[in-house]
Amino acid sequence: MTTINGIAASSGIAIAKAYQLVTPELTFEKVKADNPEEQIGRLDQALKISQSELEKIKAHTKENLGEEHAEIFSAHLLILNDPELINPMKEKITNDHVIAETALEEVSTMYVDMFQSMDNEYMRERAADIKDVTKRVMAHLLGVSFPNPALIDEEVIVIAGDLTPSDTAQLNRQFVKGFATDIGGRTSHSAIMARSLEIPAIVGTKEITTSVKQGEMVIIDGIDGNVIVNPTEEEQATYKEKQEKFAKQQEEWAKLKDEPTFSKDGEQVELVANIGTPEDVEGVLSNGGEGVGLYRTEFLYMGKSELPSEEEQFEAYKSVLESMDGKPVVVRTLDVGGDKELSYLNMPKELNPFLGFRAIRFCLENEDVFRPQLRALLRASVYGNLKIMFPMIATLEEFRQSKAILMDEKDALKAEDINVSDDIEVGIMVEIPSTAVTAKQFAKEVDFFSIGTNDLIQYTMAADRMNEQVSYLYQPYHPAILNLVNNVIEAAHKEGKWAGMCGEMAGDPIAIPILLGLGLDEFSMSATSILPARTQIRNLSKKELASFKETILSMGTAEEVVAFIKEKTE
Amino acid sequence: MTTINGIAASSGIAIAKAYQLVTPELTFEKVKADNPEEQIGRLDQALKISQSELEKIKAHTKENLGEEHAEIFSAHLLILNDPELINPMKEKITNDHVIAETALEEVSTMYVDMFQSMDNEYMRERAADIKDVTKRVMAHLLGVSFPNPALIDEEVIVIAGDLTPSDTAQLNRQFVKGFATDIGGRTSHSAIMARSLEIPAIVGTKEITTSVKQGEMVIIDGIDGNVIVNPTEEEQATYKEKQEKFAKQQEEWAKLKDEPTFSKDGEQVELVANIGTPEDVEGVLSNGGEGVGLYRTEFLYMGKSELPSEEEQFEAYKSVLESMDGKPVVVRTLDVGGDKELSYLNMPKELNPFLGFRAIRFCLENEDVFRPQLRALLRASVYGNLKIMFPMIATLEEFRQSKAILMDEKDALKAEDINVSDDIEVGIMVEIPSTAVTAKQFAKEVDFFSIGTNDLIQYTMAADRMNEQVSYLYQPYHPAILNLVNNVIEAAHKEGKWAGMCGEMAGDPIAIPILLGLGLDEFSMSATSILPARTQIRNLSKKELASFKETILSMGTAEEVVAFIKEKTE
Repeated sequence: MTTINGIAASSGIAIAKAYQLVTPELTFEKVKADNPEEQIGRLDQALKISQSELEKIKAHTKENLGEEHAEIFSAHLLILNDPELINPMKEKITNDHVIAETALEEVSTMYVDMFQSMDNEYMRERAADIKDVTKRVMAHLLGVSFPNPALIDEEVIVIAGDLTPSDTAQLNRQFVKGFATDIGGRTSHSAIMARSLEIPAIVGTKEITTSVKQGEMVIIDGIDGNVIVNPTEEEQATYKEKQEKFAKQQEEWAKLKDEPTFSKDGEQVELVANIGTPEDVEGVLSNGGEGVGLYRTEFLYMGKSELPSEEEQFEAYKSVLESMDGKPVVVRTLDVGGDKELSYLNMPKELNPFLGFRAIRFCLENEDVFRPQLRALLRASVYGNLKIMFPMIATLEEFRQSKAILMDEKDALKAEDINVSDDIEVGIMVEIPSTAVTAKQFAKEVDFFSIGTNDLIQYTMAADRMNEQVSYLYQPYHPAILNLVNNVIEAAHKEGKWAGMCGEMAGDPIAIPILLGLGLDEFSMSATSILPARTQIRNLSKKELASFKETILSMGTAEEVVAFIKEKTE
Repeated sequence: MTTINGIAASSGIAIAKAYQLVTPELTFEKVKADNPEEQIGRLDQALKISQSELEKIKAHTKENLGEEHAEIFSAHLLILNDPELINPMKEKITNDHVIAETALEEVSTMYVDMFQSMDNEYMRERAADIKDVTKRVMAHLLGVSFPNPALIDEEVIVIAGDLTPSDTAQLNRQFVKGFATDIGGRTSHSAIMARSLEIPAIVGTKEITTSVKQGEMVIIDGIDGNVIVNPTEEEQATYKEKQEKFAKQQEEWAKLKDEPTFSKDGEQVELVANIGTPEDVEGVLSNGGEGVGLYRTEFLYMGKSELPSEEEQFEAYKSVLESMDGKPVVVRTLDVGGDKELSYLNMPKELNPFLGFRAIRFCLENEDVFRPQLRALLRASVYGNLKIMFPMIATLEEFRQSKAILMDEKDALKAEDINVSDDIEVGIMVEIPSTAVTAKQFAKEVDFFSIGTNDLIQYTMAADRMNEQVSYLYQPYHPAILNLVNNVIEAAHKEGKWAGMCGEMAGDPIAIPILLGLGLDEFSMSATSILPARTQIRNLSKKELASFKETILSMGTAEEVVAFIKEKTE
């Protein structure tokens, strides 16, 4: 057996055969063909198989993961049936006496090159779709199998270089018991998806795809961050034991599902979840979430060719609010730009997108995008306990302007005799250092703060967390971050407001005691982290932790902070 | 007359004829030529004129601006004499019976395309050089005049879209009385150069190149930020008066050249200058600088094909220290990366370079680059009052590691019996929010702080100041910035250390009273801002300004701060 280390992205133990999610070699020799009809027949056959495969995948995805996730396959099916793409292939076969493979490759390459060279993100995405579909058809022409994660029907561990959103869209947790990837970190897309799917996962192993063969036995240890390849019987037994112990622990956790969250010394905090789609609500409730602390509305806008309508948004927000049944739901307004591009909005290419035209900056300049979202939210507000939160607020002016637009739409709806709740709290994400520093000033005007640590850390340390050469500077426990967090919490409490946190840090077992000591009111995390966090907090004394505050805030380095808190909470 | 508004980049009034610094149209018809010898003769002639022109420009530049600035023209001359480039042109004329223009264009395009496609910044720069040289030769073939700012020999106002470093390298202030550009802001390269050359300049007019014709009379009003095109006699007279008044004010300022800087109530501060090359020292002294607050060493590394040697660096540092004659000189170690790329270092392409692998992050990973600079500095330390400053420090660990390497080199030099000063202060730039927030922790270990506001503002507001769509968020007077600045100053004073500032903000007349009130010890600015700042400070009461501190730090917006300070200092 071999043990490969990685980053534990999602907890638990999984034992199953490896499923290599890798595109096969698709090379062939460009020979001439005497019989064009035969080649056209081969092409038609490959198209037909691809079509039925894609239909199956689409249906599976829709059933298991919802309509939105399935949309990418509708696009693929359209391409497969596009005569402008298929007819030139057949003409090439007839005129040039080439084999179907050559015709498929040459015609699709021409289209891909053409679309790719266009200065339009939407057309470039079409190029990527054509590439995807072509690969599938080519695999069927060559008679090699093409990986379809959606169609996996036995228990496996998925092994991949990285998992793209379209890959994870297809993963069915009934069969995919866990996964391991070469790249990624705790906050990468694949890691977040693993926690949302509640399957153990190890990312950033650097070498898993080259170290594991298709069908080999693999153990994913999402507790300690290891992948064990080809374990002995004995090792399998040891890990089955560990798996059972973890399952028992989960059962223990599950007992707290309907309990409120109290510290050992009787102080209450709120444990809520981050979600991306209405489908995620089920996981929030089954994991004992006391509400939604961050509903990322971007998913409504992504993978589309145009803006979602007000109606479509209204339905999504209403659905979440109703399912949460009176529990608080904090909805963040559109946060695009940065690394999240919407092809149909023609956003500018930027030298430093993380320091650019994104989120509220974009929305305040594009009220035609912003107002329909606010209207949809206001209309949905009567179906539950809605709180609205603006992202990337850097100045008071931005907050005032955003709130004024919201109030303007509220007045307009009332004039139309449409019901709107009068109890909507309006708050902001604190993810820009300026806002954390001047929290005292903001606290007079906002109803609440939610600290977005992923961005706050990145800006405070001036380090792009996606850039491997400086990712060592992404330090959640750095005293600068803790001082800013403390400043936000103190400012909120002074004005009788509440302060939450919705970055990855809020669910981190090392951060939780620190944040509890600083007085954080609301912790928003991946749904699966809620029960372990509740268990942890029940064993912590808030008063004792609060007494360490000055000591921690005066420390020089993140390393000191971690050593101290580990010692104090052992 | 027409008045065009822009951003006042450098103060003063200039009145002269417009000189349009625009590359002429270089189109021609690709006709056949019967007589190859004649065409080769034409090409040789154009090459010869270009060569003598470039030699003249090189000599002028060297004389007026120093060796370093002239180096780009050595590269151009090499290209002009490269047989690998010229011979194929002549062969094309002989074999294909084309005119010299066609041969020049086709051969150079081939080389440019080849170099440009290489994944190597150095080769891509060579492509840019070939393009530049080709344009010059083409202009001579076509008999159109090519702008040579270095050769301007009558008084003019330069009008341009933007001025590149190679353009400004050629400007001779004897004849270039001022300039106006379409693009740029107060902190763009051209604006900084204008202040360093001490000529009035307006940038960011958006339309100056299309609104002014070659030879038209133009007034640059660098006091109010206006360009007046085709002024009447009367207007010229008015501006001559304004010019004289400004000259008188400058005379008044000049009287303070050798005075220390005291506030009205007798508190002393230090006014020092930012420099880029040893040649800048003259301007520091003639403008009454009490030292150098920021010596940007990047210029030693730029426009080269390899790293400067330790010896070359030693000479530069020694020259600055000797010329400053015992006055303090703060040298910042290499700050590359971000928007400053060194072709020969093969730095990675980054998604967000401003949040990337730059400055001290790069140096700590590349000790072979870092150590020779530290050795050169240590060796130079005995020639004056040297202080060493590390850029982009985000964590205490980075400072400790940098200082340890410095001490290591100091020990090594002492072991070699080389003299090193024992009084070198070692400090840091405070330009990353984390460092400003935890200044108290840093103050125990560093000898001084210098606040780099350009970057500090950009990170604190999470806004790239070069990105026009978010540049409104680049707010020096934002309460968050002022709170961070205050935190740094208080932390320094508590430990008996000093705090300076070397961003553009330190020389800004609106910021000066605020900074004086916060207790800033050292203001480092463009040399030409020093005397106006000294004059201003002599009229300000530090005690009174300090009494506004809490009020200002509690304000909500930059707008409030500006209105308040303007009212209080009127």
